[in-house]
Amino acid sequence: MSGATGADARLMQGFATRASGFRPSPVRDVFEVSMRPGIISLAGGNPDLELLPLDRLGQMASEIIAKEGLEVLQYGSGAGLEELAELVCGFMESEGSRPKLDEIQMTAGSQMGLDLVTKLFTDPGDVVLAEGPTYTGALGVFEGYEVEVQQVEMDEQGLVPDQVEERIKQLAAEGKKVKFLYTIPNFQNPTGVTLADDRRAELVRVCRENDVLVVEDNPYGQLGFDGERHRSLHSYDPDAVIYLGSFSKVFSPGVRVGWMVAPPRVRKFLQIAGEAVTICPSVLSQRLVLGFMSEGMWEPHTRKTSTLYQERCEAVLNACEQHMPEGTQWTVPEGGFFTWLTLPEGGAADAEKALPRAIDAGVVFVPGTAFYDDAAAHRAGNPPAVPSGARNVRLAFSSVSPEKLSEGVERLAKVL
Amino acid sequence: MSGATGADARLMQGFATRASGFRPSPVRDVFEVSMRPGIISLAGGNPDLELLPLDRLGQMASEIIAKEGLEVLQYGSGAGLEELAELVCGFMESEGSRPKLDEIQMTAGSQMGLDLVTKLFTDPGDVVLAEGPTYTGALGVFEGYEVEVQQVEMDEQGLVPDQVEERIKQLAAEGKKVKFLYTIPNFQNPTGVTLADDRRAELVRVCRENDVLVVEDNPYGQLGFDGERHRSLHSYDPDAVIYLGSFSKVFSPGVRVGWMVAPPRVRKFLQIAGEAVTICPSVLSQRLVLGFMSEGMWEPHTRKTSTLYQERCEAVLNACEQHMPEGTQWTVPEGGFFTWLTLPEGGAADAEKALPRAIDAGVVFVPGTAFYDDAAAHRAGNPPAVPSGARNVRLAFSSVSPEKLSEGVERLAKVL
Repeated sequence: MSGATGADARLMQGFATRASGFRPSPVRDVFEVSMRPGIISLAGGNPDLELLPLDRLGQMASEIIAKEGLEVLQYGSGAGLEELAELVCGFMESEGSRPKLDEIQMTAGSQMGLDLVTKLFTDPGDVVLAEGPTYTGALGVFEGYEVEVQQVEMDEQGLVPDQVEERIKQLAAEGKKVKFLYTIPNFQNPTGVTLADDRRAELVRVCRENDVLVVEDNPYGQLGFDGERHRSLHSYDPDAVIYLGSFSKVFSPGVRVGWMVAPPRVRKFLQIAGEAVTICPSVLSQRLVLGFMSEGMWEPHTRKTSTLYQERCEAVLNACEQHMPEGTQWTVPEGGFFTWLTLPEGGAADAEKALPRAIDAGVVFVPGTAFYDDAAAHRAGNPPAVPSGARNVRLAFSSVSPEKLSEGVERLAKVL
Repeated sequence: MSGATGADARLMQGFATRASGFRPSPVRDVFEVSMRPGIISLAGGNPDLELLPLDRLGQMASEIIAKEGLEVLQYGSGAGLEELAELVCGFMESEGSRPKLDEIQMTAGSQMGLDLVTKLFTDPGDVVLAEGPTYTGALGVFEGYEVEVQQVEMDEQGLVPDQVEERIKQLAAEGKKVKFLYTIPNFQNPTGVTLADDRRAELVRVCRENDVLVVEDNPYGQLGFDGERHRSLHSYDPDAVIYLGSFSKVFSPGVRVGWMVAPPRVRKFLQIAGEAVTICPSVLSQRLVLGFMSEGMWEPHTRKTSTLYQERCEAVLNACEQHMPEGTQWTVPEGGFFTWLTLPEGGAADAEKALPRAIDAGVVFVPGTAFYDDAAAHRAGNPPAVPSGARNVRLAFSSVSPEKLSEGVERLAKVL
């Protein structure tokens, strides 16, 4: 962001301290590359919308606007559309939670939920825990609020509760206050890893006992390949977990609708913070989601797209088996959009440096470094020998055909 | 927000410092009262949507989703829909501005624009100037970012540039840095006052010379009763002004679409900050606004609703003339949604205390105190003798029929 001149340079002198944490998302950066003709994108975590009943949705939108236009085009409740919040209450039961209506806060997407939680709970210098690696958009939020990110490694079954507790105690010994654990328990972004069911109660208990809020982000939980739902962390202790839900991965990211679940008075503060940003979530968008759900489109669409993603996941894993250099490892996801590659030690190039050559070869991905924040380690004078994630690659298989996925992995393998 | 128990109380101990500034909006609070049967609401600044061509809009939405569903239901650009941003560039010419495409940032409503500007430019303790009184939703944003609000009085022609400069210099002498002036130059919320055209260049010059950014919020500018557009502050010096635009007051608040205009590199930072909150504005909503504009619905709808609001404004002013106690003063708006009453000195009750009795009498309004923030004066040990705005009432005439407006003013007058 250097090289600004004139008006820009003058105004930028007035920027807040937090602005130094505003960095372009590495994922959004490769978004434009993805649009180039001939490029196979293994980068973007977009849902595939091809199977949506667009004509029927259009008809539904037409009727809603014609009959309910005076309501859905007007300002709405800051808490969200009540009928949709009620439906969300029922929906949460599939994951074992039983929230009441006054615990549901609708948002303009679950990203906004994370923004509001971070705004409400963290002062500059506070610490949040996250998985290492974690969702790059979460790192962007944390950096914008000048929060210290501490990432805890996962194994093949996700976070290890003992290790989380150990890190909390270690940070406490350093005089640092951990405000919350941010976790994506199901088909995690970027690794595809799922937290083992038999670790869930323990993870929540460890956090609660150490007075660390759990922020559970679950955009992919409905997209298990076998159709089963894992119990939410929220279901184990609704007083200790704030849950972030999304309609973006199963229905539509373009309408921008998500929700949060929090104890009633905390939810009210989240509403106040949210109203200061968007006044209310789009009423029309919420009404369309309500229609999609209540007219029975959710379940069949979820089943169809899960099957689609499963086929694509298999295509990617098969192609990795066939083409990737010896010693390369990858996760085997049971749902969601992503697999995570670990390149063999001692390989010539790291993933980030390989990206430009991959683009030349007609394939784009997000390098593993995008999912780590090494700032705290640097500040502590203890930086990792190579940047965290340097030998990793996230491959997204959600929106590309199996044939192109195979071709893309083959192109990538040649570069690696 | 006292009296929390159990889970809430425990979690609330972890709140950030800024959370103490999160207060429910007084306007949103009376929103629920407004819904009671028999109540005449002079409170809410909602646009009247009765004249929207709902059937045609529904048809348009249906075609957009059926034909362009794969795009409009998908993630979109963080800067916004390019076709809509291009249209905004042309639209700004009606107010004398000529922004380029890379200066336009689409938002999920202009409230979000104000949030992003405040986030990008202010650290806790920084000062912003605003009109006294000002939009209560702006005060909510400033309080949430722990910013000190200094309000500058207006006369019948808006802010007085000399007084603004004097305040800036006075604050500088106290060692305080004014980051920006937040102003609503046209048909201001809550007063209905419009900044005189011959003060505009001077106001911008004064701010620029003193290194104070101007944040121009213009949701009502298209709604002048005579159909004329005032030149934007932005048009006088686009390097010194960030402009906030809205589609909520003329088209629809329920779709949540607005825009900002800022120098290109500053705009890029606003995009990054915005992506961390909502990833992108709703693509579907933006596409509907684009359709509304590009299919020629904007101009005729603006003309029709301006006439409607003018009739309603006249009804309110006539009723005030007829019923209000002697010595009561009110502004005479030339557009927008609001008039502002000043009760006579020495009257028995202040406006805020009169509110419960007014509700009993079947009318609701927003008391003037909602539009002031006396916190800085209190901190300086120099609080006003009575809370600022205690003798003021905002009357919104935008969404109530002339007959009900007259009846509402009569009910209110009896209480006052």
